[in-house]
Amino acid sequence: MRAVDVISKKRDGGELSTEEIRFFIEGFTRGAIPDYQASAWAMAVTLRGMNERETTDLTLAMVESGERLDLSQVVELAVDKHSTGGVGDKTTLVVEPVVAACGVPVGKMSGRGLGLSGGTLDKLESIPGYRVDLAPEEFLAQLREVGVVLTGQSLDLAPADGKLYALRDVTGTVPSVPLIASSVMSKKIAAGSQAVVLDVKVGVGAFMQSLEAAKELARMMVSIGRGAGVKVVALLSDMNQPLGNAVGNALEVKEAIATLRGGGPADFVEHCLLVAAHMVRLAGRAADLEHARGQAAAAIRDGSGLAKFRALVQAQGGDPATVDEPDRLPRARMMEEIRAKAGGHLAGVHAAEIGLASVTLGAGRAQKGDPIDHAVGVVVHHKVGDRIAPGDLLATVHANDPDRLVEAAARVLAAHQIRPEPVEPLPLYYGIVE
Amino acid sequence: MRAVDVISKKRDGGELSTEEIRFFIEGFTRGAIPDYQASAWAMAVTLRGMNERETTDLTLAMVESGERLDLSQVVELAVDKHSTGGVGDKTTLVVEPVVAACGVPVGKMSGRGLGLSGGTLDKLESIPGYRVDLAPEEFLAQLREVGVVLTGQSLDLAPADGKLYALRDVTGTVPSVPLIASSVMSKKIAAGSQAVVLDVKVGVGAFMQSLEAAKELARMMVSIGRGAGVKVVALLSDMNQPLGNAVGNALEVKEAIATLRGGGPADFVEHCLLVAAHMVRLAGRAADLEHARGQAAAAIRDGSGLAKFRALVQAQGGDPATVDEPDRLPRARMMEEIRAKAGGHLAGVHAAEIGLASVTLGAGRAQKGDPIDHAVGVVVHHKVGDRIAPGDLLATVHANDPDRLVEAAARVLAAHQIRPEPVEPLPLYYGIVE
Repeated sequence: MRAVDVISKKRDGGELSTEEIRFFIEGFTRGAIPDYQASAWAMAVTLRGMNERETTDLTLAMVESGERLDLSQVVELAVDKHSTGGVGDKTTLVVEPVVAACGVPVGKMSGRGLGLSGGTLDKLESIPGYRVDLAPEEFLAQLREVGVVLTGQSLDLAPADGKLYALRDVTGTVPSVPLIASSVMSKKIAAGSQAVVLDVKVGVGAFMQSLEAAKELARMMVSIGRGAGVKVVALLSDMNQPLGNAVGNALEVKEAIATLRGGGPADFVEHCLLVAAHMVRLAGRAADLEHARGQAAAAIRDGSGLAKFRALVQAQGGDPATVDEPDRLPRARMMEEIRAKAGGHLAGVHAAEIGLASVTLGAGRAQKGDPIDHAVGVVVHHKVGDRIAPGDLLATVHANDPDRLVEAAARVLAAHQIRPEPVEPLPLYYGIVE
Repeated sequence: MRAVDVISKKRDGGELSTEEIRFFIEGFTRGAIPDYQASAWAMAVTLRGMNERETTDLTLAMVESGERLDLSQVVELAVDKHSTGGVGDKTTLVVEPVVAACGVPVGKMSGRGLGLSGGTLDKLESIPGYRVDLAPEEFLAQLREVGVVLTGQSLDLAPADGKLYALRDVTGTVPSVPLIASSVMSKKIAAGSQAVVLDVKVGVGAFMQSLEAAKELARMMVSIGRGAGVKVVALLSDMNQPLGNAVGNALEVKEAIATLRGGGPADFVEHCLLVAAHMVRLAGRAADLEHARGQAAAAIRDGSGLAKFRALVQAQGGDPATVDEPDRLPRARMMEEIRAKAGGHLAGVHAAEIGLASVTLGAGRAQKGDPIDHAVGVVVHHKVGDRIAPGDLLATVHANDPDRLVEAAARVLAAHQIRPEPVEPLPLYYGIVE
């Protein structure tokens, strides 16, 4: 078999066989197939597509390229969640302890933020002392003893995916549904997941900006799950405006803690309950979604979710006092209130613009490896559809640099679109694929 | 400007600007843009295409990537020919001396054969002593003094094309009309051509197997010529059966010499006269094609074409005695006659199969750099449409190895398709684009 023939077959719109896909990914992983062939292949896949069978084979070939975490000795059925990334998406911080409190052990390997999307690891590192570099043995021990783990990727999971992603990033081959779907699913499967709740974000602050594209991606991931023996539920959730109010690392941790205490913004609370309910149901801990949701709500109401979060922070070396006194988390030196110039109805809180304002302040990264400032960010106070009076507080900008503050403040104000006529609130969800 | 943005624009079907194309080719030539970005770009171009303006810009950017031959001090208007490659295509060996004999100096840089298609340099090297490595000064001096040059590429002409072609060859991005057209035209323009007769082969023995694709390529090259100030005439000529009778290096030189002596197979003679006539007309040496053809025919009839060929061979160090006694050219040790098993009408002499038989015998290369045997090859004795009696001689196989002979003989026999019902002869041409 020759790599050029596999590339040419896909170029001509052909369906690659299981053997061809394995040959290509295996050769690419060990360097026998050079980057220039892999990038031509990735472009052919981007423009010609892949069917569900091919994408499942690609996913499994990437899983086989590295190590695989086996959680079967620790949990009955390993359930995980994954978000395609959005602005203000701190869902993992609430959902994982809540699900753990419902009796479902959850161990998750998260990533760092890049561009608009924040990363769970960056958020957790707002907590003084919190370690995100657990070794595989520590991961398993903590999962067994505490029932919840949130750390970075310590095993060499799906290295083919890592290598391919780095290449796609510089060759214009990121926006391909089969390549995105196989990338997400290969890491989940290699990390030992047997069931996954996927949170596919749609809107101006998400990678998928059209519902059509998001649905296609969701269907593809559900199909990979079917082919790989992994239960998958995909939620299509709105990312036109930020999720919840807080955007920025420590600010988001505070909002997550508030939510675990029974507070938190209504949209974010609802989102956490739904994701947690799907996870509890997939884990077989509830007969149906309604009962699962009841368990999740109870875990918030009775404080067991918060207790799990405290146990998680303590187990990973973080200061548990921050959980009870969130003001101990890093705080920015400057705060500026952004107020409405005119009254009316809020027609848009442009998620991408709010995300960019947060990156401008130093909360996110333009390039991999850039340092970040955990204290800064933006807190919005209104949702699309809200009635606004002139002078109403729209958002608060938390900054450590006066120039960045000016730039971010202008961006945050411009991100709020106010119209005289009434505006319908945005839905939280556009559908569920399973 | 970033390479990834140029790639992404083409991926999405956008039209690249002159600046974007220059940036990409210039960066690729000096290594600032790595192979893996160039191959992803080439795949995007292959699948999304390029319009005439983009392709002309690409051609000129590749011309600018290296040296350029200036023939203006030696010839009034430099005219050249180029064939997209076929089986038995020894046209250059006849046409260039004939055109030179008509008073139009012609200097050509040719290439070696690969796969089915023979290369003019390989054929010329059948002549003992013939040098194909003239330095640029030698090229110009010989063009001035002898009026005809046939050598290899000594200058660093369009190095971007050479680098891109090597990459396309292993990334499935060879079959792209804009990439093929710009590759051909960039080398012709860099070699100083001001007018070019393109011989675009169509059929089972050619790179372009459909008339549609060949026409598209011809139109694109004519359009590049227009944009670059180069006169271009493209002939769409048949390559379903071999051109002339001989396939194999020394065998083809012999057939070329026979043609220059006034003999030669009818189809090949006709083809040489038409190509030569277009060149003479483009050079402004004849009022119309008919007069130009008359001059070319006269140059064969009066022996001045043959004299030019002899002068060419002598000037480049070859043994001129071979021109008068072609039996001095390398001869194979074994000859096998392939005869018709049954009678009927010849419906096909599959050019690709005859070409492969010749490669099997050692006349061609499977891989760049492979050695070749100048003596071996195949001579076919009939054309599609001929009436065949049982036992008629179809072809003669010239071999130096008994095993290869057996394999080639079987292939040659199988390449001849005989039907009971009468068969129309194949046309020599399917059209002209200018």
